[in-house]
Amino acid sequence: MSNSPHQPLGTELPVTDRTRLRRMKEKGRTARADLDAVLAAGFVCHLGVVVDGAPVVVPTVYGAAEDTLYFHGSVAARSLTSAPGQTVCVTVTHVDGVVLARSLFEHSINYRSAMIYGVPRPVTDPEETLAGLRLITEQAQPGQWDYARRPSRKELAATTLLALSLEEASVKLRTGPPDDGDSPDAALGLWAGVVPVRLVRGAPVPDPALAPDVPLPHHLG
Amino acid sequence: MSNSPHQPLGTELPVTDRTRLRRMKEKGRTARADLDAVLAAGFVCHLGVVVDGAPVVVPTVYGAAEDTLYFHGSVAARSLTSAPGQTVCVTVTHVDGVVLARSLFEHSINYRSAMIYGVPRPVTDPEETLAGLRLITEQAQPGQWDYARRPSRKELAATTLLALSLEEASVKLRTGPPDDGDSPDAALGLWAGVVPVRLVRGAPVPDPALAPDVPLPHHLG
Repeated sequence: MSNSPHQPLGTELPVTDRTRLRRMKEKGRTARADLDAVLAAGFVCHLGVVVDGAPVVVPTVYGAAEDTLYFHGSVAARSLTSAPGQTVCVTVTHVDGVVLARSLFEHSINYRSAMIYGVPRPVTDPEETLAGLRLITEQAQPGQWDYARRPSRKELAATTLLALSLEEASVKLRTGPPDDGDSPDAALGLWAGVVPVRLVRGAPVPDPALAPDVPLPHHLG
Repeated sequence: MSNSPHQPLGTELPVTDRTRLRRMKEKGRTARADLDAVLAAGFVCHLGVVVDGAPVVVPTVYGAAEDTLYFHGSVAARSLTSAPGQTVCVTVTHVDGVVLARSLFEHSINYRSAMIYGVPRPVTDPEETLAGLRLITEQAQPGQWDYARRPSRKELAATTLLALSLEEASVKLRTGPPDDGDSPDAALGLWAGVVPVRLVRGAPVPDPALAPDVPLPHHLG
């Protein structure tokens, strides 16, 4: 976002105490492009906040800009209004496959996951609010922002939008076949491989309340 | 689990201060069967823990028994070893569709989500460990536990399994068309409906290291 107070991010993700991987280092990625790719591939994240000392994890939609993640503050209202300025963790995960090894111990999941830490900033500028909502909408359904009715002044006033800097983030992923293809277990003669998993979008289902002459817009066709 | 210390759960989920819904009450479900259905429909959860006062949300696999959720402790090792006895939040989410309304304000997501709160119990009994691992494996790929090589004593010793009671849980979901079919916006003549989304399992992909004569087992066919 051009009107964001954050500096543009570099091509490498800075490693902090939180984003340094403690386990399975081979699965970590530190390129900024990997973060962008994980965020671009989905539209639902899991937002973690602390309420009364205990974690609360809620799913919510998000929109990713160059250096900022936008999400609705209402989902976190309970915690973020009671404790503004607190750190949150946003995790975006894509499950790509179930990894079936020769041994159950080597079973795994192919996935791509990003974790972003930071103190969210309430968005108050009307222009940034619209830009953030546009990103959230377009992430879930490209083309929809220019098609549907824009938010009214009253609706905007009822919207709590939060912005989270992408400065402190980590990316982890696993790809490929099981790891025990060259182990003694390979001699067991058991089948091993990956069952691919992917999120598929189906054909649009019209609202039953829709008049029959309303055409499906081009961006959904 | 018959060897679990928890009492069997009733058919209704008890409402606690944490599971009482503050917003969108119409989306809440309190039947135990709704929780079971959400847990049965997936195999990846998002586990929220508190580390140094800040939330950390990590994706991990799980297995659901009648009154207990099992997951690997290693993913939470950083927090759960430094602060044993702390409350966690496990969230399981299925995205079912993108709800395209006439107004952007009414855009939404069709989803099913369960949140479980509690203090996880480290599983130390070898029989319960095997039963928990079996549930986790079978949740991701039914039939696989009886096919692949079982964990050795050494592998079991390297496995940290946690059990979380399903006593304190909430279920939220949204289904159906957009909510503005009977609003003034219906007169705008805009298309509205739902783009269905679902997780699809593809055909199994053999490990390139696999000998060509190893048949695909029946449970994967």
